[in-house]
Formats: sequence, C-alpha cells, structure tokens
Amino acid sequence: MSKNPLQPPRGTRDFYPEDLRLRNWLFGHFRAVSRSFGFEEVDAPVLEHEELFTRKAGEEIVEQLYHFELHDRRLALRPEITPSVARMVGARRGALRFPLRWFSIPQCWRYERMTRGRKREHYQWNMDIWGEPSEAAEAELIAAVFQCLDRMGLARADVKVRVSSRALLEETLHETVLRRRPEVFPALCVMIDKLDKIGADAVRELLVDPAGGVGLDAHSADFVVSWLSLRDLGEAVKQAPPGATGASELARLFELLGDYGLSDRVVFDASIVRGLAYYTGVVFEAFDTGRSLRAICGGGRYDHLLETLGGAATPAVGFGFGDVVIAELLADKGLLPETQRALDAVVFAFGEAERGAAVRVACALRRDDASVELVLGEPKLKRVIADADKSGARRLYVIGPDELARGEVLIRDLETGEQTHEAIPR
Amino acid sequence: MSKNPLQPPRGTRDFYPEDLRLRNWLFGHFRAVSRSFGFEEVDAPVLEHEELFTRKAGEEIVEQLYHFELHDRRLALRPEITPSVARMVGARRGALRFPLRWFSIPQCWRYERMTRGRKREHYQWNMDIWGEPSEAAEAELIAAVFQCLDRMGLARADVKVRVSSRALLEETLHETVLRRRPEVFPALCVMIDKLDKIGADAVRELLVDPAGGVGLDAHSADFVVSWLSLRDLGEAVKQAPPGATGASELARLFELLGDYGLSDRVVFDASIVRGLAYYTGVVFEAFDTGRSLRAICGGGRYDHLLETLGGAATPAVGFGFGDVVIAELLADKGLLPETQRALDAVVFAFGEAERGAAVRVACALRRDDASVELVLGEPKLKRVIADADKSGARRLYVIGPDELARGEVLIRDLETGEQTHEAIPR
Repeated sequence: MSKNPLQPPRGTRDFYPEDLRLRNWLFGHFRAVSRSFGFEEVDAPVLEHEELFTRKAGEEIVEQLYHFELHDRRLALRPEITPSVARMVGARRGALRFPLRWFSIPQCWRYERMTRGRKREHYQWNMDIWGEPSEAAEAELIAAVFQCLDRMGLARADVKVRVSSRALLEETLHETVLRRRPEVFPALCVMIDKLDKIGADAVRELLVDPAGGVGLDAHSADFVVSWLSLRDLGEAVKQAPPGATGASELARLFELLGDYGLSDRVVFDASIVRGLAYYTGVVFEAFDTGRSLRAICGGGRYDHLLETLGGAATPAVGFGFGDVVIAELLADKGLLPETQRALDAVVFAFGEAERGAAVRVACALRRDDASVELVLGEPKLKRVIADADKSGARRLYVIGPDELARGEVLIRDLETGEQTHEAIPR
Repeated sequence: MSKNPLQPPRGTRDFYPEDLRLRNWLFGHFRAVSRSFGFEEVDAPVLEHEELFTRKAGEEIVEQLYHFELHDRRLALRPEITPSVARMVGARRGALRFPLRWFSIPQCWRYERMTRGRKREHYQWNMDIWGEPSEAAEAELIAAVFQCLDRMGLARADVKVRVSSRALLEETLHETVLRRRPEVFPALCVMIDKLDKIGADAVRELLVDPAGGVGLDAHSADFVVSWLSLRDLGEAVKQAPPGATGASELARLFELLGDYGLSDRVVFDASIVRGLAYYTGVVFEAFDTGRSLRAICGGGRYDHLLETLGGAATPAVGFGFGDVVIAELLADKGLLPETQRALDAVVFAFGEAERGAAVRVACALRRDDASVELVLGEPKLKRVIADADKSGARRLYVIGPDELARGEVLIRDLETGEQTHEAIPR
C-alpha cells in the first residue's frame, strides 16, 4: 500500500457529497450559459492516442502529459479537449452543418508542480465555434464568459477580460524578426507566454538562445519583449504594417463587445499570447481584477489546428474555463453557495414489524416524485428527528406499533411541528 | 499518426451532440431515481493508485486494468468505482453519519475483447449503502433499479432481477467443500461466475485444477456446479445447514420486495454469484427477460471491502448499472428518446451594418433566459430559415437594412408563420 492508502493520488480530488454539490452548481452555470448561447454539448474519451497531443513548440502541456504504453499503443490522458474536438469535427466534416457551436465540460490531466489554483486534474468548461472566420465568434464567446461570471454572483468590476491578437503580433514581426524564419512564430509565442511566470529578462534569454529553437538576435528579442508591455491598442496598431488584419479584427471585436455592453470589462493587453502553439488570431484571458489568481479562463482563435491533424482547413475559436480557479475566486468573495441535500421526506419504522408498511409509504411518496429517505436499521426516534432536521427534509413519516394497528402513518411537519395522520397504503 | 488519426482509441466513444443528449437523458434518469431514494452524489478520480484495484482472486477486472507507471508510481484508470468509494468512506469514517446513501456515475475502463454491449469504457451508475447490515438495504437498491427501468419506459415483463447469496453458498459448502480451506471461497466464486460464458464442464475443470488456486476434489466440484442450477430457494435452503443466515436473509429480502410490489419481478437464481472477489452476501443481477444481452446491472453485499483497504469493518451493499447494455435494450424495444436541440430563438442580421442591433436583440432575449443562436457570417435568409426550422427553434428574429432604419426587429413565429415587429433595444 502507498504511504496513504486512503488518499487519492497526489493532485487529484475526491468529491464528497458537499464537493459534488458545488461541482454540480458550477456545471449547472456552465450548461445554462452554453444553452443560453445555443451551444450543444459534446464529449470525447479521457484517454486518447498520445500523438493527438504531441507538438514540437516546447509547450508545457506536452511536457506534462500523463502518458503510457499499453499493448503497443502510446496513450495519454487528455490535457485539454480541443484536439479531441478537432478530431471529431474532422471525422464528420462532410455531415456537419457549420458553424458548429459546441461546448463540453471534460476532466483534463496535467502532471505538474502544484500551486494555488492548479491541481493535476481539473474540469474545464469549453465553448468552441467551428466554421466562422469573423470576430463575431470571439465576441459571442467573451460575452458567454461574462454571462457566466454574472450568474455566479461576481460583481461587474471583479473580473476583466484581457485581449490581444497573435495575428497582429505576427504581422508586426513579419518583415523584421520573422523575415527569414516565419516558422518559429508558434515557438516564439510559447516562450513569451512565460512572461508572467519568469519575467522579461528570462524571456529575452529564451528568445535569443539558439538551442531553444527560436534564436533571435538581441535587438529583435528586445523589440518583442517591449511589445508585450503595450496596453494601448492604438500604440500596437502604430507598430504594425498599414492594413494589418490583426489590427482591424481587434478594432471590430472591441466595437462588437460594445454592442454587448462590455466595453468597461475588456482591455487590450499585448502580454496575452496563450501558451498553446496552435492559436493563430485573437487571444484572450479573464483575470480577477486584483490579479491574485491565475487566469480564470483563456481562449483564442486556432484556424489551423484541424489541418495539422490531417483534416480540412476550418476556422475555429474557443476557450477553456477551469473549475478550480473560479471556485477560489468565489470563495475569496464569499460567493460559494450554501448547498444542501435535497430531501422531501424521511420515513421511519419503529421495528421490523412496521417495516413493510414503511416501505409502502415510501413507495407511494416516491411515485409522487418526492425525494424520500427510508430509515434503515432501528435507530432511536430522537436521532431520526435530528438527522431529518439536518438533512433539510420537510416531513417525517413515523410508523410504530400503534400506528400500524390503526393502519395510519403519523406525519410530522419538521418546520411547524404540526402532526397529522394518513392511511398506510395497501 | 495512427491508421485512423481522426478516430478515438479502439473501444472508446466520441459523444457528438445527439450522443450526448442520449447520455444526458440516461444520466437524468439515474439522478432522478437516486434523488427519489434520498441518495447523495459523489465522485472520485478516474486515475487511482493501481494497488487499490489489485486483488489475487483471479478476477478478470484485475487482469484488464489500464495501468501504467509514471514517476515511480503505479497508476490505473478505474475499472469500477467501488474501491475508490470505500477509500473515501475509510478516510472520513469518523466524521460521516451512517448509513450513507451515495450514488455516482463514473466512467470506468477495462481493457478487454469487445463484444455486444461491452466497450473498453462505459459509464456506470452506482448506488451504495454503507453502514447498514440488514437486507432492507438490498431491497431499497433493487427497488431503485426497477424504478429506473420503469421511468425509461420498459414494460414490467421486460426485465427480471435474479438474486442469490454468497453467504448461503458459503454456509452450504462450509462443512464439506471449504472445510480445510475456507480462504479459497472468493476465488471459487470468481470461477463459478464464468458459468454463463464457458459452461459447466469448463467451470468444473477450473475448480479441480490445483494450479488455479482452488483445487477441489471431483465430488466437491460436481456438487458446486450442480448447486448453481438451482432456481428454487426452498431447494437451496434444504441443502444448507439448519439456521443458515444466508437462507433467512434471502427469505426476508423476498418478503420485503413483496412490500415494494416486486414479487413478480425478482427470482432466486443460484447461478448468480458475480465476478468480483469482494462480495460476501446477497448478490443480484438484472437481465432482459429474453436473455439476449449481458447483465443490465449487478450488485451485492461487500461487508469486508473497507477492511481489506486497512479501514474499519463497515457493512456495505451496492450495484453498478452500465450505460451501454441498457441503451441496447432500449434500442431493441424502440424506447430510445427522440432528443432535439433545445433552442428558443434564432437572431439574424443581414450584414455587418445590422450586427450590432442583432447582438442587442440576442442579449435581451438571453437576459430573459431564452436559448438564442446568433447567426454568424452572412448566410442567405432561406438557409437561415431552414436551419432554424431544423434546430427546433420557435422564433426567428430578422434585422435587415429596412428594419434597422425603422429601429425594429421582424419576428417570425416558425410554427405559425405569423410575423410581428418589436423595437430593437438600445
């Protein structure tokens, strides 16, 4: 046995009833928002062929795979669901009607050092739009994120969505930094995404290190790092070539977000690039305004992912929204719900002689769609009342020898204490 | 890339929207029944320490583990959730109020040859009662199984639950077959559970084979195999020693099931033993009456499982009910539901000039809790109407240049064709 045979593997969670009620509360919001935006739910296996996830841009997510070999197959627990969904879109591309609006709430696995807001598994709400190239898709997704935060009770000022565009950055670097080697751009993005974690100097070192695969000259690296500090879209646009599509897309996106009434909740932030290699256009992350936690959610456009899996070119945009960080933010704000076991009635037989009658009472209540606990064993009435109170049950049904003799069940309203009688069903 | 880079690993499933709607329909019934019986939902990691599942009684489930080593840890995908739940009960035993009524709907994994009704993963509805030694617990669980089958639309005669008792068998064999080696009983049960699959002769061979770990003499093996053919509880009781508790428990269980109104739906069947080593008492399986499919569900009492994990002795009983076999039975009976995408409204802007107004209309509808698809891109109105009809939407909101000029949105009722106008929100 392990050191702690009764504990789950490190970084993973058991869900006791109170934990599961919270999870269902979160998932309920995810589903309600997805439904509100007309999205359909999908899912894929937690276990996939490893090659679905392996890419060569130096992403952490690839280094942190839970992977193994079984009967000559390399398999991996999904670290994210996007490649699986891409696989599903590719497999039925001819039969699907685009644009697709798909959501999912997969459990995902990453083997990594644990920090606040990050375990080795989490559930991640995903919303993705497939087949729509315009920024109207990004706007819908960002609006859905805010609808969810609002539903959960967060204040308008609690969370900001920070937006940038890889397309804009790529166009800005196209004629200078990337001129001779445009193919290093995804790896460059993976490196600069580490800015928050390791700081500007370390990012600069990564960018110039020839062994890292990008190998910029010092001047180019300086330019890239300084670009990341921009917080004004106008400034960023000035540095891009005239007519840059990344610039006009961002401008149109912010305009649309105004129609959603979100202008005060979204900001341009050039330091947002996302750590996955496959993003190609607009990228965004939601942060608590105090920036005390990791990103609440992150997403962006990934128009070429399906092609890299051997499928047809299909524009796509989506986000992932984990269950762990949002739960911490809600806890910090005192917004976690008080969930309670839902129970309508408790049915109690004094002893074996009355059990059959109690069963018939419980069956009748359940036929009327009530949630009914049939007390097992022969506990004392006092304990039964205490437990029934604690469980939030509204009524207690009691059958003792006297009740049985009269063919009646005693019904006690646990709120008012009022007592009535009804016939025991035959 | 694999031979089929766009396919999930063999034996695993993608869930497209129509598959997920069916899954949610099944899970909805599982949750509704569990709630009706006052059970609380729990969950545990899909990935556990391998040792939680490894036992030495020759069970298939152990041979079929998806297991691997990662950073010096032996890990496995859960083949069932019962050991995880036992672990959870053991970890908080002092703080929990017994009896516990817990249910879960875990995805479970077994690496095996695929046959009808069996893939390499499935979802399994589990209901377990912890802390109650009497057969009143078994009766509640069997009643819950039937409530679920009834809810799904199956006819009363479509499914029977077959019941036996390992305790009765053990008591029957105690003074003869097991006298010198009572410890072989779990392995003996695992062997005789194969009866359906491999036949009586092969089971007899397994029982006498000294290499198999049980090594009965021929006479004993014959007795065990002949016992399995019993279908009359009175006959089985006659062969047990006087006062056998297994006999009185079964008698009481059938009596209670009568109180639930289930006498015509449950039968004694000595061939039911279950393939897991940990069962100790009553065991049961549900089968379609035609026996054309594998067991729909199976369960029983496992009073010693927590002890084998190092916890305190705690009586327990539960069942597992998979999503695959029941879906096949429902399909055979024509009872699978016609599920449809739930959509209230489709909002359509003719072009970019009208998109902002369409966004404001969609936001207003969503604030009123409607499920709204905002049409993306610039498809033709004809296609939008066809798609909206197909999606089951009730109303189509259209904003063209004329509507925008008048500040109105045109609303078309997709059932009646009736058209009205409303002001576009500011």
